[in-house]
Amino acid sequence: MADTRTEIADLGEFGLIEHLTRNIEFQNASSILGVGDDAAVLDHFGKETVVTTDLLVEGIHFDLAYTPLRHLGYKSIVVNLSDVYAMNATPTQVTFSLAFSNRFSLEAIDELYEGVYAACSRYGVDLVGGDTSASQKGLLISVTAIGEVDPGQYVTRSGAGKGDLICVSGDLGAAFLGLTLLEREKRIFMESPQVQPDLEGQRHIIGRLLKPEARRDIIEFLGAQHIRPTAMMDISDGLSSELLHICKRSGVGCVIYEDKLPIHEESRQFAFKLELDPTACALSGGEDYELLFTVPQADYEKIVLSEQISVIGYVTDAAEGVHIVTRGGNKYPITAQGWKAF
Amino acid sequence: MADTRTEIADLGEFGLIEHLTRNIEFQNASSILGVGDDAAVLDHFGKETVVTTDLLVEGIHFDLAYTPLRHLGYKSIVVNLSDVYAMNATPTQVTFSLAFSNRFSLEAIDELYEGVYAACSRYGVDLVGGDTSASQKGLLISVTAIGEVDPGQYVTRSGAGKGDLICVSGDLGAAFLGLTLLEREKRIFMESPQVQPDLEGQRHIIGRLLKPEARRDIIEFLGAQHIRPTAMMDISDGLSSELLHICKRSGVGCVIYEDKLPIHEESRQFAFKLELDPTACALSGGEDYELLFTVPQADYEKIVLSEQISVIGYVTDAAEGVHIVTRGGNKYPITAQGWKAF
Repeated sequence: MADTRTEIADLGEFGLIEHLTRNIEFQNASSILGVGDDAAVLDHFGKETVVTTDLLVEGIHFDLAYTPLRHLGYKSIVVNLSDVYAMNATPTQVTFSLAFSNRFSLEAIDELYEGVYAACSRYGVDLVGGDTSASQKGLLISVTAIGEVDPGQYVTRSGAGKGDLICVSGDLGAAFLGLTLLEREKRIFMESPQVQPDLEGQRHIIGRLLKPEARRDIIEFLGAQHIRPTAMMDISDGLSSELLHICKRSGVGCVIYEDKLPIHEESRQFAFKLELDPTACALSGGEDYELLFTVPQADYEKIVLSEQISVIGYVTDAAEGVHIVTRGGNKYPITAQGWKAF
Repeated sequence: MADTRTEIADLGEFGLIEHLTRNIEFQNASSILGVGDDAAVLDHFGKETVVTTDLLVEGIHFDLAYTPLRHLGYKSIVVNLSDVYAMNATPTQVTFSLAFSNRFSLEAIDELYEGVYAACSRYGVDLVGGDTSASQKGLLISVTAIGEVDPGQYVTRSGAGKGDLICVSGDLGAAFLGLTLLEREKRIFMESPQVQPDLEGQRHIIGRLLKPEARRDIIEFLGAQHIRPTAMMDISDGLSSELLHICKRSGVGCVIYEDKLPIHEESRQFAFKLELDPTACALSGGEDYELLFTVPQADYEKIVLSEQISVIGYVTDAAEGVHIVTRGGNKYPITAQGWKAF
């Protein structure tokens, strides 16, 4: 090991990935697209194969104090399928690996798999492999999802062009608020175990955190309408972070409008209750697993046919930066905040 | 969670996998073969895609006290490629994911990746994805490997037929002896840090543990000789365990001969030094990453052209069981022992 020591924290995750993958040169003609998008694209003679993978660690990505194992299994599959859809592809297979300590019983692992199979069944994907082993501490999950797409039809993060419309599916910020609620209830429970959790009227935000869905319907809608997004990714780290990512990769800027951000009424109410700004939650809350994509202006008439899609702004020259226009008409630069901002 | 509690230990790993995957039904025509072999097979219109995955956990699968990170990165790729070759396929892509605690510096992670890239370069595979995140404790690695094979040419564990020859590549038992040596030196070091490790004349067994290779050369040889094994798997848990697995899956029995087992001279000497039986090490030591396969008797003349392949026995009816004939001419049933026997 060298004498110098660079802290990983100084790079951030994207910096680390860029650093670690900077020298990759493909050796096989079938490797079309590798590290740096939601998934890799492989050419397999007739269809292109999409593959994506995630590693989930107890205490980092999930807290079993308030996450039922069934939901965790379901979510671990769904978040990978979301990456496949974000490539404009159809997921077809997954592998599911896990390592766990002896504090887990077979019944517990069964519950986890029930969720895995429920997700596979719902999304029509086949579990084709995996690995199970012991861990010294806690539960670790690794999922790889594979999908298919017609040749050349996959959508990266780098194709957004000036004038394109910026679209998001569903609503934003709810999963973050669900997490905030469950963390609060956990704290209360730790201090006073006799207090019943107060989850009244919070089904939406809790459901969005514990049982997210991947937006297959949006990909099907876009296909049926013959709309091919110019850029697309799923929203896992938060809208701000993903917008900056698409703009950087596409070499463009953008403007979005606060009053166009889709926020569920329940999210808005709960944010107010906690004295949080709903817009900040929508921008920086993660784990929405909605799709963020750009389409040519010519597709506007078709896009508005879906009630599940909101047009939130448009793409500009890179020189104009990345901004949000507030309800009051002020324009502020968007910065990547992610979870840590809160 | 149900009231009953079944301990995972009561099932064993294979029992657990069988249990967890018992209800799988494929939903996509492209899923040809799923859980239960070295890798899954996917039909992608012209070539078939092979995918396999492994999850490696610090303290369970590796000990950083004597495993250089570069070697660990290299090995984590190689053990997955070994699974692809064991399907008679050619690996083409890998994904590499890791989670690590803040005790690791960038330089440390770089070293790990150096090994990953060295393996990718050596075997001509492309790293196309992955995931990096934090862990609360220790290093976790997840690798998925993808490969290609001509339609219908993949080889499973279930095709061995009566009269087939049983073949293994390379030599057996060395990695286990390397592990035994390094564990011994670690114990000595913990007790008396001033004592220099005594690794004299043990390059082979240490190398076999820390820097295993996948047997691409064997697959190329078989291809060039137009030999298609009837069954094949790589030897990761130990010859006994894998032989029992192939026999069970193929519905056959077998006889192997002690004097035919390929054991390196250095392994033999070191085993004697420790008062271990070299044959027991070859049967039950794991992590050899050699190929175990069966071929029709008609291929015998071609098989013996390779000095890297040993014919160790032959396939019988299932009713005859699974046996080893010792040098002294005695016949003993083979039982799955794996690492724990030692």
